[in-house]
Amino acid sequence: MGVPPLTSQPRSVHSQSVVALGGGHGLHASLSALRMLHDSLDVDRITAVVTVADNGGSSGRLRQEFGVLPPGDLRMALSALCGEDEWGRTWAELFQHRFGGEGEMQGHAIGNLVLVGLWELMGDHVRALDWAGTLLGARGRVLPMATTPMDITAEVRDPHSSDGVTTTVRGQKEVATTPGEIVQVALDPEGPDACSEAVQAIEEAEWVLLGPGSWFTSVIPHLMVPGLREALTRTPAKVVLLLNLVAQEGETAGYGPVEHLAALMRHAPDLALHAVVADRGSVPDTDALAGAVGAVGAQLVLADVASPGEAHHDPSRLAATLRALMSA
Amino acid sequence: MGVPPLTSQPRSVHSQSVVALGGGHGLHASLSALRMLHDSLDVDRITAVVTVADNGGSSGRLRQEFGVLPPGDLRMALSALCGEDEWGRTWAELFQHRFGGEGEMQGHAIGNLVLVGLWELMGDHVRALDWAGTLLGARGRVLPMATTPMDITAEVRDPHSSDGVTTTVRGQKEVATTPGEIVQVALDPEGPDACSEAVQAIEEAEWVLLGPGSWFTSVIPHLMVPGLREALTRTPAKVVLLLNLVAQEGETAGYGPVEHLAALMRHAPDLALHAVVADRGSVPDTDALAGAVGAVGAQLVLADVASPGEAHHDPSRLAATLRALMSA
Repeated sequence: MGVPPLTSQPRSVHSQSVVALGGGHGLHASLSALRMLHDSLDVDRITAVVTVADNGGSSGRLRQEFGVLPPGDLRMALSALCGEDEWGRTWAELFQHRFGGEGEMQGHAIGNLVLVGLWELMGDHVRALDWAGTLLGARGRVLPMATTPMDITAEVRDPHSSDGVTTTVRGQKEVATTPGEIVQVALDPEGPDACSEAVQAIEEAEWVLLGPGSWFTSVIPHLMVPGLREALTRTPAKVVLLLNLVAQEGETAGYGPVEHLAALMRHAPDLALHAVVADRGSVPDTDALAGAVGAVGAQLVLADVASPGEAHHDPSRLAATLRALMSA
Repeated sequence: MGVPPLTSQPRSVHSQSVVALGGGHGLHASLSALRMLHDSLDVDRITAVVTVADNGGSSGRLRQEFGVLPPGDLRMALSALCGEDEWGRTWAELFQHRFGGEGEMQGHAIGNLVLVGLWELMGDHVRALDWAGTLLGARGRVLPMATTPMDITAEVRDPHSSDGVTTTVRGQKEVATTPGEIVQVALDPEGPDACSEAVQAIEEAEWVLLGPGSWFTSVIPHLMVPGLREALTRTPAKVVLLLNLVAQEGETAGYGPVEHLAALMRHAPDLALHAVVADRGSVPDTDALAGAVGAVGAQLVLADVASPGEAHHDPSRLAATLRALMSA
């Protein structure tokens, strides 16, 4: 078995190659926006680079049983890239569907099981993901940030202590839910090898999107993979940071846009950002954010990217903002 | 979501519509032969009608957990109909692949999980099977003989008793493995509703194949479904019985071709057989078999259909024999 045929569109003069880094629901939003830009021929090549440190739920169980990458975030990224046709909707729904009942299968997403099955069968994470993408008719490629499973650890400052003592919390699920301020995250094993196809995609891209998503467990982990951090520093691509709309309890409690930016830059001081996109209605102090963004040499893009009345990004609004940014 | 697009070939003047009834490895062999005849345009429409009484292994576990049809025999039938191209081979391999390891997933075939997921998602066994067939690029349609799970029970005569006492054995796995002579099999619940699409396929077919396979647990159960038995009696199609090559320990120990035929006819005395196909090298007494076949009004077809030196049918030899029979 070779590499499956990937659907591709003829590349127009104006279309762009984009890499989106993240995980979970945040990456689902940025990929949904990119899929719309693919449909409108503004973007011709989409690559998702996905965190693989999840240790909870169906992914955690499968990872423990088989020693494979946690499939959940990869599955969600694949489904975000599915088309609106009946084929795409049907297989995406199946991939996302979780077994009901109360037995041993309960809670497993079918797509997770298919990915693990393909990994067992092919012995190659990337090739298996390409096959899954072909089945789903995905409008882009989904890659893991590294091809070995890992854990996230975090130095967390006790919210009730005033002496600055930190404790180390281990596991994506635990990091995302332990109260306290996260000072620093790291990966275990430290400095894992990057997925080489992900490095290549970043080097060949015109645009790289970072975020939105769980800041310390889905966005910043990419910067802790040396090969990815170097590629992000070296690439001629314009790197765009998509800020979260709100703080996330357990991860970024009390954070505004400025603190989100600062936490990210603390983990990758050499990163050259081209632009920082923030939702207009979610910025409490525009001047402060403009100052912080200017200080890292990036331009601030304020736009209406939130779903009205909700704390998540609206894919079509995000698509419109990205289209304007890319054609500027 | 509607019905998925089924691949179909333009129907030539000589091509035929064929229904194959059975289960397990026997049905896999007859469907593999039909798939070859489909590739050569001798057959243009294949429908598999599959036993759904399995209670062992991955199928038994899923059936117990979800109350669905046991998917295993359906999965195997689908994979037999896959093409030899890379797409067909890859997805068929994935469907047939069983999880390794020693955890809770161990032994589950991926295709079984996909089928159960599609059933949960769509709430319709037949539509889900059509979608699975579309994914696999199957060269025909796979249907269950009934759309409710059931058990097989058997009256078994104790091999060590001379007074003719029988005991009732329940469960496909148990029936297939309990020593002793099977006198009669039945379904529980008795007289289940046939799958209406299977009934229609039998009524519209030119040919119906019955067997080979585990005689009492994969072949005869179809005759215990009233709607199917009536359709088989009523259909203008020519019904062809494909005899097993050897006796099967626990089911048909001591049986030759004559006894296989007699056991089948005992369960469906009204069945009009057009032909009985037997492997030339597996018939100990040709005259006796010719007599028994003639007595039920059928023609005997003796041909080399076994894999040389092995106790199973060779799909290409079976295909050649069926082609000759269908064009006679």
